[in-house]
Amino acid sequence: MSPPALDVGSTGTPVSISPLTVDGIAALRAKGSKMPLGVAAGSSSDMFKSPACFAKPKAKRWDHVISLESRSRKSSTLKGAAKYMKNPGLISLGGGLPSADYFPFEHIDFKVPKVPQFSPEETKETGVLLKATKNDIREGKSLYDLEICLNYGQATGSAQMIRWVTEHTELIHNPPYSDWQCCLTPGSTAAWDSTLRLFCERGDYILMEEYTFVSALETALPLGVKGLPVGMDEEGLRPDALDEILSNWDETARGARKPFLLYTIPTGQNPTGATQSLERRKAVYQVAQKHGVYIIEDEPYYFLQMQPYAGAEGKAVPPPANHDEFLKSLVPSYLSIDVDGRVCRLESFSKVISPGSRVGWLVASEQIIERFTRQFEVSTQNPSGFSQIALYKLLDEQWGHAGYLDWLIHLRLEYTNRRDSLIHACEKYFPTDIVSWIPPAAGMFHWIEVDWRKHPKIASKTHDEIEEAIFMAAVERGVLVSRGSWFKADGSVKEEKMFFRATFATASEEQIFQAISRLADAVKQEFGL
Amino acid sequence: MSPPALDVGSTGTPVSISPLTVDGIAALRAKGSKMPLGVAAGSSSDMFKSPACFAKPKAKRWDHVISLESRSRKSSTLKGAAKYMKNPGLISLGGGLPSADYFPFEHIDFKVPKVPQFSPEETKETGVLLKATKNDIREGKSLYDLEICLNYGQATGSAQMIRWVTEHTELIHNPPYSDWQCCLTPGSTAAWDSTLRLFCERGDYILMEEYTFVSALETALPLGVKGLPVGMDEEGLRPDALDEILSNWDETARGARKPFLLYTIPTGQNPTGATQSLERRKAVYQVAQKHGVYIIEDEPYYFLQMQPYAGAEGKAVPPPANHDEFLKSLVPSYLSIDVDGRVCRLESFSKVISPGSRVGWLVASEQIIERFTRQFEVSTQNPSGFSQIALYKLLDEQWGHAGYLDWLIHLRLEYTNRRDSLIHACEKYFPTDIVSWIPPAAGMFHWIEVDWRKHPKIASKTHDEIEEAIFMAAVERGVLVSRGSWFKADGSVKEEKMFFRATFATASEEQIFQAISRLADAVKQEFGL
Repeated sequence: MSPPALDVGSTGTPVSISPLTVDGIAALRAKGSKMPLGVAAGSSSDMFKSPACFAKPKAKRWDHVISLESRSRKSSTLKGAAKYMKNPGLISLGGGLPSADYFPFEHIDFKVPKVPQFSPEETKETGVLLKATKNDIREGKSLYDLEICLNYGQATGSAQMIRWVTEHTELIHNPPYSDWQCCLTPGSTAAWDSTLRLFCERGDYILMEEYTFVSALETALPLGVKGLPVGMDEEGLRPDALDEILSNWDETARGARKPFLLYTIPTGQNPTGATQSLERRKAVYQVAQKHGVYIIEDEPYYFLQMQPYAGAEGKAVPPPANHDEFLKSLVPSYLSIDVDGRVCRLESFSKVISPGSRVGWLVASEQIIERFTRQFEVSTQNPSGFSQIALYKLLDEQWGHAGYLDWLIHLRLEYTNRRDSLIHACEKYFPTDIVSWIPPAAGMFHWIEVDWRKHPKIASKTHDEIEEAIFMAAVERGVLVSRGSWFKADGSVKEEKMFFRATFATASEEQIFQAISRLADAVKQEFGL
Repeated sequence: MSPPALDVGSTGTPVSISPLTVDGIAALRAKGSKMPLGVAAGSSSDMFKSPACFAKPKAKRWDHVISLESRSRKSSTLKGAAKYMKNPGLISLGGGLPSADYFPFEHIDFKVPKVPQFSPEETKETGVLLKATKNDIREGKSLYDLEICLNYGQATGSAQMIRWVTEHTELIHNPPYSDWQCCLTPGSTAAWDSTLRLFCERGDYILMEEYTFVSALETALPLGVKGLPVGMDEEGLRPDALDEILSNWDETARGARKPFLLYTIPTGQNPTGATQSLERRKAVYQVAQKHGVYIIEDEPYYFLQMQPYAGAEGKAVPPPANHDEFLKSLVPSYLSIDVDGRVCRLESFSKVISPGSRVGWLVASEQIIERFTRQFEVSTQNPSGFSQIALYKLLDEQWGHAGYLDWLIHLRLEYTNRRDSLIHACEKYFPTDIVSWIPPAAGMFHWIEVDWRKHPKIASKTHDEIEEAIFMAAVERGVLVSRGSWFKADGSVKEEKMFFRATFATASEEQIFQAISRLADAVKQEFGL
């Protein structure tokens, strides 16, 4: 459980070519590239990947699906001059970097939990104070400091955080092609907006789950890009539905080229809570291969995979006994089966560390990451340096990869409890002839189906009217849930079913019971029960 | 010099309708709106402006210059449900906000300078430790805490920082129309990218200084938006040149509609260092009025206005004796003369606090800020919460507006010294029959003209070849400067003159002298002197 060695240096330990393990990271660091420590120092995942990665085949090229906007991007003129900075003794009057003497922060302390004492109460007692000053690098105290993080940085993010996310990516996903790269983002919402600009032209359709994260759709619409709903079942996206759409695409009738971009939330899908099994992912991937589709996997909830639901009276499944068991419990990602380099994975710290960090990262093939980097250079640049050093201090210097896995196991058990409370409340309060659900295996969301066709006024009321009435009756009783219709990938599609989305992320157990009891009363009232 | 009162409450002090002063801010806060303290609480500048602001006329409408993309943006479906959150006793299972129990930061301390002991050495001795915990709001210790800043936030930024930038804007610029608003940004580079998307269509030209911040151009080009160079003199942008372009615009010949967007860096312009006088700004504004032009003023260097240059042997001009003298020494902004609401001001903390904060803000009319907000909601969301609380603790709780002005005076004097060193070095080393310059009044950049027509091989060498030769000779001698040609707003325009840009922001006085001596040697070598 001790964090990996901080210093980069040669220990003589042989680097294994078997898959990277938590315990192998210290040796990898010792053998790997020296961390570049200057202001806005360049880096790439290649500096931090295992040798084993490079033996794999390269990703396919995606030139034909890169947008006009993205194809037009060139390297930055001013950044081009940086190559001369390597000349020894050179004095630069070239750039516009302010002096660190004018950053009015002498040091910053972060108090964080000590592994495994993760609760707020324990952290108060036993938490560790991590200190960052301006001179930590020069004084040999750390590989990252305020002088670096508070100045301008590279669009890929700091080398310090690139190392961490690269190692994490290899540890968890180990992509089956060689030239994958990571690039930090200012959060997945921004990354998705950039993704649309990188791939799409006005008039394009993107493939989405028929119920999807509506903000992702609302990011696309103003760009002239429409959502094309793909049918779902209890495992989420249906490969047969995807294949059918693509096999029968009629460009003339549709007035649009055949869709080539799939946006999917494979784990703990928002809003349905569905999680695609490995077999499901493989089947979807095959359809993508068949039709030349590029896959965006948006995975904020990946580490909110929970223990199996044991029922109200059932015996809880014992938590993972060690890191290995934990890692084996996770459903493999699209990235981990991506032999072609046709997946761009959107990673986020929002659900597992803090949304306010506004730091996430992308994993994709070098070609795609290079285009993102050109885009970020002239837009969001790098994520906040305050955020980057907070994450670095916590994840790299204090917890290490082992401690982070322990934290994720902690979250897993916490979310399991929250999910169980919500399901127990549903079991207790809902009239089960009208209301039904599947306990979610991941995420924050519970997707509740109401059999609206059993409504007493079904002859005179529309789906929308009944949904609205239940929603408002719930609000009047003091509970806010989300209406299923808000999440339609195509607003014009008529819904066969009716859903409400309830989240178990924030409310306490007591509040959850009260909220569900109110919602059940609202349903009963509307159905005259 | 004491910071303004923290608490919002009624003191009975009458709020003046004369222009806001530093001393008036405490009274304004006491009379003003209560700070909204919830997670992702909404706010607007209207909550924090003086009553005097509302008596002014409203901004003009700009519907005709808003892009198709921006016009298509709608309010977020999910954020629309937030209105029910105000119902007392409501339990929300609606949103996807994680619980603050899972933010692994118990507290953060920031050690910052005490006014006026601003140097790094003084800060080590006398600096103040500012502490932020998760419960500061609940415990009545602060109006901002980790529970709020580390969760999701509003696209406009936190209410806490909106109050501060609104007050600062009114204090410094006091726009002459009523419905101006502020919105935080993740830095001005991102804000400029968003600006282009908000106003421009493919094929448009934007008006820019003939030498401009080349990254701003490189942000525009991939969007199909070209730079149209406007002639400059020692005061920067020339209104007559602007008028001439616009008066003679031929849509057919140009294949583009008449330009309506002016991008200008009025103070310490990058790369020329030129600063537009108030008269110059008024003249440019009149041309903008005449032709219906909307102005983007990009002002990272506004507070790097320096003391007048006194010459190598001259007597230094005494520094501003108080805040009033300091404020009067600043050239008024476009925003401060913007009777129409035709200015969007891009504000940045990069040059005055830290580039790594990735926090800036926009000031513009309500119509324009509303469109930006819709865009940020589905892209960058809010700036980093770590950055926002660092800035809030420093600027609001510790320094207050008075202390911030003292910090800015400190920077003014520091940059004056740096600029003076560079000019002294130029006076000492350059052959003045070939090399000339005007000491910059603001910014980080010194613009050095080389009379390339005096080059001995002028008959056989091009402008580009001579510029390249001097640049490379300088690099070989160990000094990096930027080539003037890198900054052309239109790369195809032939240059009459030849320039190099040198920054005095980072290097020490000793390095500056050494660097300029090397550059002078390079010039002399190339000119056979």
